[in-house]
Amino acid sequence: MAWCPCKGSSPVGQCIGRCLFSYFQEVQLSLESLGRHILVEYYGCDMNLLNKASSVKALMEDAAREARATIVESFIHQFSPFGVSGVVVIAESHLTIHTWPEYGYAAVDLFTCGEDVDPWKCYYYLLEHLKAKHSTTIELRRGTLNTPHLRHKPLPVKVAA
Amino acid sequence: MAWCPCKGSSPVGQCIGRCLFSYFQEVQLSLESLGRHILVEYYGCDMNLLNKASSVKALMEDAAREARATIVESFIHQFSPFGVSGVVVIAESHLTIHTWPEYGYAAVDLFTCGEDVDPWKCYYYLLEHLKAKHSTTIELRRGTLNTPHLRHKPLPVKVAA
Repeated sequence: MAWCPCKGSSPVGQCIGRCLFSYFQEVQLSLESLGRHILVEYYGCDMNLLNKASSVKALMEDAAREARATIVESFIHQFSPFGVSGVVVIAESHLTIHTWPEYGYAAVDLFTCGEDVDPWKCYYYLLEHLKAKHSTTIELRRGTLNTPHLRHKPLPVKVAA
Repeated sequence: MAWCPCKGSSPVGQCIGRCLFSYFQEVQLSLESLGRHILVEYYGCDMNLLNKASSVKALMEDAAREARATIVESFIHQFSPFGVSGVVVIAESHLTIHTWPEYGYAAVDLFTCGEDVDPWKCYYYLLEHLKAKHSTTIELRRGTLNTPHLRHKPLPVKVAA
């Protein structure tokens, strides 16, 4: 369950009267756009997992596959003494993660373009596998242009698996 | 100049009475947090530049240096027939870009942690060098935890230049 950033006890989009964010979000999501971007804060995650670069990389790639995104490139960096930063560039945009194991916290971005990939599938996959106790999400539209028929950029013919 | 996402003619943060977004943004920015994230839409950019992977990669790396960020890794992907996706992982989080040259549009994310790197320096650098006619920005805080002294993860001792 994704909770509203107002820190109340209502899920995102159901906190009418509690904060103004849901109103803004609803207006913004109604626009035609090139992409969808979900900014996620995962709290209370498995601390050991958040500090293991290989596991985080595998999870991020699996999250991309869960949404049937096409992986172009992935990269992970292990910080010392703790924390990782990871990026999965997909043909439909990108997934990123930055972890603070000491806080059990991960900042995740799920940015997808086109109609074929649903970033919420990545969200739920990571929510489960990072073992997050709770999370907050903000979904925004990217590239809200005044053109009647927005097109996603064509997929590359060959990309790395 | 960054214009408010309400599509009015007021700069971000000065559109009181025109939309609710500035109110939400102000409240959100007042919280203590681990990171700052600016989501930028650049419109009316140089179309040829947006389609040239090497130029976009150099610009993104220069934007990181402009803000005195520490570059860990950078990656660019050229789509066919047009458009590029690029990522610069920095020790302080990441910069990303996705371009639609056919619309003169670029979606850019500037996510920085800690107090030493100002993501707005990246924003202004790219605004000038992408030759954007106008842009919209949203700044959000990431990782607003209930701990009195938030610490950024330590910088790596050695990172690729």
